[in-house]
Amino acid sequence: MKISLKKKPKNPTIIEGFPGFGLVGTIASEFLISHLKTEQIGKIVFNEMPAMVAIHENKVVEPLGIFYNEKYNLIIIHAITASQGFEWDIADNIIKLAEDLNAKEIISLEGVGSGEKTALTTSKVFFHAEDKKNRKRFENVKLAPLKEGIIVGVTGAILLRSEKVPVSCIFAETQSNLPDSKAAAKVIETLDKYLGLKVDYKPLMDQAEKFEDKLKSLLTQSQKAQEISEQKKLSYMG
Amino acid sequence: MKISLKKKPKNPTIIEGFPGFGLVGTIASEFLISHLKTEQIGKIVFNEMPAMVAIHENKVVEPLGIFYNEKYNLIIIHAITASQGFEWDIADNIIKLAEDLNAKEIISLEGVGSGEKTALTTSKVFFHAEDKKNRKRFENVKLAPLKEGIIVGVTGAILLRSEKVPVSCIFAETQSNLPDSKAAAKVIETLDKYLGLKVDYKPLMDQAEKFEDKLKSLLTQSQKAQEISEQKKLSYMG
Amino acid sequence: MKISLKKKPKNPTIIEGFPGFGLVGTIASEFLISHLKTEQIGKIVFNEMPAMVAIHENKVVEPLGIFYNEKYNLIIIHAITASQGFEWDIADNIIKLAEDLNAKEIISLEGVGSGEKTALTTSKVFFHAEDKKNRKRFENVKLAPLKEGIIVGVTGAILLRSEKVPVSCIFAETQSNLPDSKAAAKVIETLDKYLGLKVDYKPLMDQAEKFEDKLKSLLTQSQKAQEISEQKKLSYMG
Amino acid sequence: MKISLKKKPKNPTIIEGFPGFGLVGTIASEFLISHLKTEQIGKIVFNEMPAMVAIHENKVVEPLGIFYNEKYNLIIIHAITASQGFEWDIADNIIKLAEDLNAKEIISLEGVGSGEKTALTTSKVFFHAEDKKNRKRFENVKLAPLKEGIIVGVTGAILLRSEKVPVSCIFAETQSNLPDSKAAAKVIETLDKYLGLKVDYKPLMDQAEKFEDKLKSLLTQSQKAQEISEQKKLSYMG
Amino acid sequence: MKISLKKKPKNPTIIEGFPGFGLVGTIASEFLISHLKTEQIGKIVFNEMPAMVAIHENKVVEPLGIFYNEKYNLIIIHAITASQGFEWDIADNIIKLAEDLNAKEIISLEGVGSGEKTALTTSKVFFHAEDKKNRKRFENVKLAPLKEGIIVGVTGAILLRSEKVPVSCIFAETQSNLPDSKAAAKVIETLDKYLGLKVDYKPLMDQAEKFEDKLKSLLTQSQKAQEISEQKKLSYMG
Repeated sequence: MKISLKKKPKNPTIIEGFPGFGLVGTIASEFLISHLKTEQIGKIVFNEMPAMVAIHENKVVEPLGIFYNEKYNLIIIHAITASQGFEWDIADNIIKLAEDLNAKEIISLEGVGSGEKTALTTSKVFFHAEDKKNRKRFENVKLAPLKEGIIVGVTGAILLRSEKVPVSCIFAETQSNLPDSKAAAKVIETLDKYLGLKVDYKPLMDQAEKFEDKLKSLLTQSQKAQEISEQKKLSYMG
Repeated sequence: MKISLKKKPKNPTIIEGFPGFGLVGTIASEFLISHLKTEQIGKIVFNEMPAMVAIHENKVVEPLGIFYNEKYNLIIIHAITASQGFEWDIADNIIKLAEDLNAKEIISLEGVGSGEKTALTTSKVFFHAEDKKNRKRFENVKLAPLKEGIIVGVTGAILLRSEKVPVSCIFAETQSNLPDSKAAAKVIETLDKYLGLKVDYKPLMDQAEKFEDKLKSLLTQSQKAQEISEQKKLSYMG
Repeated sequence: MKISLKKKPKNPTIIEGFPGFGLVGTIASEFLISHLKTEQIGKIVFNEMPAMVAIHENKVVEPLGIFYNEKYNLIIIHAITASQGFEWDIADNIIKLAEDLNAKEIISLEGVGSGEKTALTTSKVFFHAEDKKNRKRFENVKLAPLKEGIIVGVTGAILLRSEKVPVSCIFAETQSNLPDSKAAAKVIETLDKYLGLKVDYKPLMDQAEKFEDKLKSLLTQSQKAQEISEQKKLSYMG
Repeated sequence: MKISLKKKPKNPTIIEGFPGFGLVGTIASEFLISHLKTEQIGKIVFNEMPAMVAIHENKVVEPLGIFYNEKYNLIIIHAITASQGFEWDIADNIIKLAEDLNAKEIISLEGVGSGEKTALTTSKVFFHAEDKKNRKRFENVKLAPLKEGIIVGVTGAILLRSEKVPVSCIFAETQSNLPDSKAAAKVIETLDKYLGLKVDYKPLMDQAEKFEDKLKSLLTQSQKAQEISEQKKLSYMG
Repeated sequence: MKISLKKKPKNPTIIEGFPGFGLVGTIASEFLISHLKTEQIGKIVFNEMPAMVAIHENKVVEPLGIFYNEKYNLIIIHAITASQGFEWDIADNIIKLAEDLNAKEIISLEGVGSGEKTALTTSKVFFHAEDKKNRKRFENVKLAPLKEGIIVGVTGAILLRSEKVPVSCIFAETQSNLPDSKAAAKVIETLDKYLGLKVDYKPLMDQAEKFEDKLKSLLTQSQKAQEISEQKKLSYMG
C-alpha cells in the first residue's frame, strides 16, 4: 500500500470520509468535493482492493481519492471502496501523510449506530476530540461529545493510532446500513460551523437525496457486476 | 508475475482483451489475432493461475499471450484465463509494458452489463477515453461515451492506474455471462473504424458465431476437466 | 507486532489480564487500572486485530494498553480485544518486555472452566506458580494450586514460554463465557493479599457488577457494530 | 520446493507421469520403473504436500521420485501425490532440471477426457509435439495428434512453460477419474514404439490390472487414513 | 519453528511419539517419560500451534517436549498437540536434531489403521526399518514387518525425509481414532525388547488404562475449552 501525491500542501486540515455506518463518511466527503472547489492531488493504492471501477457522469470515480481545496487549505480523503482487513494499514498511511504535511488536525466524518430503532425526525450529531482546544471549539458550536460508542473501520484505527496530529471526529447517529444522506447532511452542517466554511448548507438535504440515489445506483450496478463476476468464476476456463 | 517478451516494438498501440462480461474482450482479441497477420511475441507468466491448458487445432493456446501485428504496429494482449485476485498485478504489468515501449495508447475491449434484459436486436457500443484527442476521434466515428457503469477486472484496474499512457475503452453492452460473440463483433467493427484497420469486418457476425462455438466447446471441456480434477482431489492419495 | 513504551520502569511486577473465560482477566485488570493510581505508558500494536475502537465515558479505550502504578511498581497489561491467532506473538512480546525491564514476576489473571454447572455461591480461586518461593507465598495466603485444567490464550502461551521471568497465575473458576465479575472480584481479593496492595477490596463486589454492565454494553454495541459491518461487506461497492 | 538429485546424467530423455485423468501418468510411469532396470536418483521435495506416506511390499513409496534407467538414458519422474496448487512450481522445477541436464526431450504421459461415455473396447492414444522432428517420429509410429483438448496439472504446465527443451505428450483417452490401467498400457505400448525400448509390452494388459488393484488398495487405505485424520483434527487437543 | 535444547547428548537413540491413530505415539511416549528416569531438556516451538496449555497434577504439560534418559542415552520427543499442516517442518527439525547429535537411530512409535473392524483380542504390532541391521534386530524379537499401509503425520514425514540417520518404526494396529492404550502398551512391550530397556512392562496394561483416562479427561477439558473459546470469538469485542 502506498499514497501517491502530486501536491504537498503545508499545514492542511485533513478530512476523511470512509464508508462506515450509513455510508455517512462517503456521502459527506463526496458532497464536500463537489461543493468546494477541489482538485484531485493523489490516491491511495493497494492491490488487495476489489478490481472494480465506477464510471459516473463519463468520469472514472477514484475509489480512494485524495482531493485538495486551496481556499481553506483542506485535504479531503474520499473512499467509496470498503477496505475490510486493511483498515490499520490505511490509517497508518493517512497518519504518516498527516505527519509529513505537518497537518493541523485530522477530522473524521462517521456514522454511529443509534441505540434505539425509533422513528427519529432528525439524527443527532456528536463529536470526539482528544485535543482540549478542539474540544472547546466543538462545544462553542453547541455540539455534545460522544459518551459511549463503538467506532469501526479506518476512523476507529486513526482515532487509536494518531499520536502527533490531533484527531477530531464528527459522528452522526444512523440506524441502518443503508446510505443515510440525512445523517451525512447533519455532519456537513456541523463541519461547516466548526471550520467556518461558509458553505450554503441549506439545500444540502435535497441534494443529499440525489447523492443517495446516485450512490444506490452505483451500488446496485456494482453488486450486479460482482454477482456476474462470481458466476463467471464458475463458468470460465480457469 | 512477469511479462516475458521476445520483441520490443516501439510506440505501439496496445489492445487488451480479458474475459470480462460476455467474454467480449477474449472473443474480440482472438478475432484480431487470427484475422490480422500476427505472431506471438511474449506472454504473462504467474504461478497462481489454474494449471490448465487448452489444445485447439493441434496447438497449445496461450492463456495470457502477447501478439504483434507489424503493419499497424499493434500489440494485442489476449487472455482466456480468469485472473481473479491478480487483476491489479496484471494491470500494473501491462501499464509498465506500455510505458517501457512508449506506447501511444492502451485500448481495452470490454463488455458492460446492460441495464435491462430486453430482447435487443443489436448491442450498443460505448467508449471511454480520458485523453481529449482520443475522445474526439471516438466522436468522429459516431460513438457515444459510457455515462454510467461499473467496470470490473483487468480493464477496470488499467483504467484507474495508467497515468502516463492514455487509456481508451470500447465497451459493448451484453446481457449475460455467456460468451456473446455479437457484442464482440460490434467491438471489432468500432475498433476497425477507430484505428482505420481496413479489415473486412462484414463476415464478422458469422465468424463470431464460430468463435463462440469454439469457445463454448473449450469452456465445456475445461469445466468437465475441472470437475474431474475436483473429484480427484477427494479420491487421490493426498 | 510491537510494544511501544513511553516509560521503562525497572524490576516491575507485570500483571496481565486478557479476555479469557468469563472475561475474568479483562475485568480484573480494568478494576486495578481505575482503583490504583495508574497512567498509560504504552500499548501493544498489531495490524491483524479488528479495526474497532470503543469510546467509554468520552474516552477512547485502548484495546491493548500498558499501564503503570508507581507506588507498587506494577505494570498492568489490559486487553479488551480478542487476539485469536496471535496469542504466541503477544506472549513472546510480553515475555521480551518482562526480560528487558528485568521484571520480578509476571502475574496472569484468568478464568478457568469449572467442572460442574452447579449453582456455586462463591467461585473458587486457585494459583499456579513454577517458582518455589512464589508457591510458598501463595500457600501463605491460603490459596490452593490448580491441579488439573486447560489454560487457553495469551496466559497459556506465557505460562509455557517464559523461561527467565517466573510466571504466576491466579485462576478463578467460572462457568460460562459471559462476563463474570464475581470471579474477577475474587481474583482481585487474592491478588491484593498476595501483593499486599492494601486496596479496599470490600466494595469490589458491587463495583464489579457495574463493570460487568459497562462491559456488557460495550460488547453489545460492538456486536451490533460487527453485524452491521458484516452486512456492509455484502452491500458496499467492493 | 527443490529437486534433490544424487546423479546427474547428461542428455537424458525425461519421462514424467503425474496423477492426471485416470491416473494414467502414475500407472504408466510406475510400470516403467519396475520393468526397466531403474534406480532412484532423486526426489522432489516440498512442505505443502500432505504428510502421508505409503508402505508397499515392505518399502516406502516415494511420492515424487526421480528414477534413472542407464541403458536408454531415461529419467522417469513418478508421482503418486496430487500437487493441487503447486503444478506451476513443480513444472518450473522439472523444466529447470531438463535444462540443467541438457535433456533431449520431455515426454509427458497423460490421460485426456474422452468426448463420449460409450463402451469403448480400446482407448485411443494421441500425441502432441511442438518439435517438428518429434512430430514426424510420432507420425512414423502411426499416432494421431490431439486436435482438441484440455490438459490439466503438471503436464499442462510443462507444455506451456518449457521453451528450450522440446516437450512431447502421449495422451490416452480415458472416461473416468478411476485408475484406468488399460489406458496406461496403451500409453506404454506407444512409448515403447516411439523410443524403441524393446520392452515386452504384451503382458502389460494383465499386469496393468494388478497395478490397478495395488493402486486402488493404496488409495482406499489413504482415503481411510485421511478420514480418520480429519476426525482427529476435531477430537484432539489442539 | 525451532528446537530449543538445554543439553546436547551425543549419539542418542531418538524416540518420537506424536498423536497419530489411536493416540498410540502420545500414550506410549508419555509412559516412557514417566517410567524411565527422565528430565526435560528442550522443546519444539512454533507460533502456529493452538495457544492451549494443559495443567496436569499441578504441572504444565509441555505440548511438544523433548526429554532425556541418561541410562539408555534416549531422547524422547513427546507430543500431545496436533500439528496439522506443520508435519514436514517438524520432521525436518527432528531430522536436523538427529543429525546434529549424531543420533544412532530414530524410532517412531505409531498406530496404523487395521484392515477389518473385528473384535481383536490383541492388537498386532509391526515394524518398518530401512536399515538392514535394524531389520535383523526386529526380526530377532519376532516382529513382522508392515507390508502394506499408509503412515500419516510427522512419522510419515520423518520416514520419507531422513537420509543420514536410520529410521525405524514400531506400529500397533488400532481400529479407531479414540485413545487406544492397549495398542500403546503393545508398542512399549516391543520397544522394551528391541532396546533391552528391562522395564517392568507387565503392569503396563493396567497403567495404560489410567493414562487413557487421564488423556480422555485432558481431551474433554480441552475440547470444552475450545468450544467456549469458539463461542467467545463471536461474543467478544473484536
